[in-house]
Amino acid sequence: MTPSPAAALLEANSRYDIGGCLADIGDVPVVTDAVNVRRRSRDFFWYSPVLNEQLKGKSADVIVTPRDEADVIRVAAACARRRVPLTVRAGGTGNYGQAVPLEGGVLLDITGLAAIEWQRPGLVRVGAGAKMNDIDALTRPAGWELRMHPSTKRSATIGGFVAGGSGGVGSVTYGGLREPGNIVAARIVTVEEEPRVLELRGDAAQKINRAYGTTGIITALEMPLAPAWPWIDLIITFDDFFDAMRVGYDAALADGVVKKLLTPMIWPIPQHFGPLRGHCPEGRHVIFAMIAEPSLESFKAILGSRGTITYEAPHDDAPAVEPLYEYTWNHTTLQWLKQDRTITYLQCLFPHDRLIDSVREMWAMFPDEVLPHTEFIRFAGRVTCSALPIVRYTNVARLNEIIALHEHHGVLIANPHVYTLEDGSRHKRADADQLGFKAEVDPYGLLNPGKMRSYKPARN
Amino acid sequence: MTPSPAAALLEANSRYDIGGCLADIGDVPVVTDAVNVRRRSRDFFWYSPVLNEQLKGKSADVIVTPRDEADVIRVAAACARRRVPLTVRAGGTGNYGQAVPLEGGVLLDITGLAAIEWQRPGLVRVGAGAKMNDIDALTRPAGWELRMHPSTKRSATIGGFVAGGSGGVGSVTYGGLREPGNIVAARIVTVEEEPRVLELRGDAAQKINRAYGTTGIITALEMPLAPAWPWIDLIITFDDFFDAMRVGYDAALADGVVKKLLTPMIWPIPQHFGPLRGHCPEGRHVIFAMIAEPSLESFKAILGSRGTITYEAPHDDAPAVEPLYEYTWNHTTLQWLKQDRTITYLQCLFPHDRLIDSVREMWAMFPDEVLPHTEFIRFAGRVTCSALPIVRYTNVARLNEIIALHEHHGVLIANPHVYTLEDGSRHKRADADQLGFKAEVDPYGLLNPGKMRSYKPARN
Repeated sequence: MTPSPAAALLEANSRYDIGGCLADIGDVPVVTDAVNVRRRSRDFFWYSPVLNEQLKGKSADVIVTPRDEADVIRVAAACARRRVPLTVRAGGTGNYGQAVPLEGGVLLDITGLAAIEWQRPGLVRVGAGAKMNDIDALTRPAGWELRMHPSTKRSATIGGFVAGGSGGVGSVTYGGLREPGNIVAARIVTVEEEPRVLELRGDAAQKINRAYGTTGIITALEMPLAPAWPWIDLIITFDDFFDAMRVGYDAALADGVVKKLLTPMIWPIPQHFGPLRGHCPEGRHVIFAMIAEPSLESFKAILGSRGTITYEAPHDDAPAVEPLYEYTWNHTTLQWLKQDRTITYLQCLFPHDRLIDSVREMWAMFPDEVLPHTEFIRFAGRVTCSALPIVRYTNVARLNEIIALHEHHGVLIANPHVYTLEDGSRHKRADADQLGFKAEVDPYGLLNPGKMRSYKPARN
Repeated sequence: MTPSPAAALLEANSRYDIGGCLADIGDVPVVTDAVNVRRRSRDFFWYSPVLNEQLKGKSADVIVTPRDEADVIRVAAACARRRVPLTVRAGGTGNYGQAVPLEGGVLLDITGLAAIEWQRPGLVRVGAGAKMNDIDALTRPAGWELRMHPSTKRSATIGGFVAGGSGGVGSVTYGGLREPGNIVAARIVTVEEEPRVLELRGDAAQKINRAYGTTGIITALEMPLAPAWPWIDLIITFDDFFDAMRVGYDAALADGVVKKLLTPMIWPIPQHFGPLRGHCPEGRHVIFAMIAEPSLESFKAILGSRGTITYEAPHDDAPAVEPLYEYTWNHTTLQWLKQDRTITYLQCLFPHDRLIDSVREMWAMFPDEVLPHTEFIRFAGRVTCSALPIVRYTNVARLNEIIALHEHHGVLIANPHVYTLEDGSRHKRADADQLGFKAEVDPYGLLNPGKMRSYKPARN
């Protein structure tokens, strides 16, 4: 078979036998246009000035866009036979460079695998490329929605969330993806000369959780659903940031109050909240919250006179509407970055048994340099805070010093300024043998080589 | 108005002007038959040999059975004017003598106030005398049920549960009635010469929580609802009781696993489980559990090979079916008492921050005398265990010694062997000024005088 002119051109510029690979995959659609390939080889790693330097030049050689799992199998086989690196990409909304091909090769855009296979009360099975907003739209008429989603829900896919997320809006009730029951099953294709299709159920599904797509190509996911409450979006303002922390903590601990989001943020973070700035008075600290409508009265009883509600409206989940949650989780960082690229952020996990004290301790240590933005979550069954503080960036050495000081004081950091799985994820994954599993499903180490840095290919 | 012959007879035997009272209330139905009055002046206080001695002779003089709130107001006014004690009774399923009139007088049977006023997603408003099973049957078609119920759900009323319960099946997810949001509102009638009707919302509703009906006559309640999952009843058996504890703890901490009941019980408790005895092999410890069907696979992944499932069936909530939960909470005690009246029980709350160690410590201290039966719950937002251990009873002094030793070792006891509010309830109520509130709503101290022993009537 003669390679196409585009493939011949690619091959000339690549270390890999891209032409042979494309010939092997037949009619699976590809994108070879260099501008498009470079653009889609990126994600939101640029939130980190460190990653931005390290990853900005990386690109795949070609994008392949499978239409179904059969196509994925053909691509996996071709890459395995030709020893071509393969990096999976979906919405490209991640922040850890998980969609960036470190060694080039094929970028596998799985957004075509978007079918809802089935749904029943409490469970849905979907293609990994399905957008989370679409899943919610299709399950909501029967009274259900995904238990949790990232702040990028309007563009993120379920596969990308499971492979590169960890939790988000909803984790105040259900914990993160690492908690048992939050990923019911995953179907993957192995990268072997004769690819296998594996169904990973229960604990086994954790082998693909936040592995950045390095432990098999996820093609389908079975995810638990939550009752789709009518949510009320709220902004509450406070004189003292630690009043916001205490109200958030009380509400997070109140198991009788149904909630999806409890996000305290210190002033001046809300200064950057564009359309919502009018509800965030100068100098006042805020909680952004989503409370189930029938629990609203009870939530207000907890709040009492400790804060002032400046915004209260039913949550509108229409895809075109900018939702309140796009000012929380890592969108908080984005809102500031839109106006000022000098800041960056961290990802923290505070100790549950001295939560408020620990937040106060960190705040006192870096009062103007690390601005508290906490997210109440459940972690291993305990209420605590994740956090994505705004960091006024000076240089890498200082950033690493800040990280070290957090860790020295018992605050875990999932470092978003490193691109490898091992250095970045830490507490966000469950205890699953992802390294050992990779040897089974990616023996040649082709799934974004370098991303799981400790992996030594089982075969050559 | 001339009193009826029955009323005249009653008056002759009572310290109170019962005849005048009955004349005042006009056509509100009454029961004067002494056998019936004595029988319905009792509840399940006889679980405690101590209460049995203290309360077995107590009786009202007459039972009044209001048809609606207007009737309640007439009775309250009459009792206030005539200074006749008034004790509220509903299903009579309590264990603290809360339905036993300590000083005689009128027993107010509120089971006629059973209307469902309205329901909407997540909330229901009902008469206080509505049976909990009936409420569930009426809310389930729309996909809802009460968040929690006692093991007596088939005969208990919602008013009795709120006034004298504390939590139960469902508290592993929602905590007890004391948690914010678990009682949305209560409507009460005051016992005054001109009774008032008060709507207590939010925090204020805690003023009637587990006050045994001494802080106003509850006529209606607004209660939060939970999604009515298809529940799976499970019996799981274990070689070691502490394996059962650990599995229960892991499942209780798993926020991704939807559950309603997690009840570890040590052998030989299951020996007394009649129809379910066949699923409880000799010498093996058990967990009785209710898990939402879509979470069952995840629950089994948590269980792994640590225990053996001997029973698994969809929960049937039909009123005529004896449900699995009637072997848990205080029905566990009842199952044993059916065969052997020499035992009694305690009500414990273990410390959440050293839960398993604390259970082990108590078990080691009284290995054959206090048999562990724990109930996983959330309390103030933390996973811990309530417990209703079986106590091999010898005498009051030893019982009090056992209680003191528990408390000395950090295990809270809500003593079910005392009949006053102050001595028995403790941690089960929220922090509400029930004593101060009583002065407002029961100034003459007529609501079961002696039950709230620290109350001194505001007026005579």
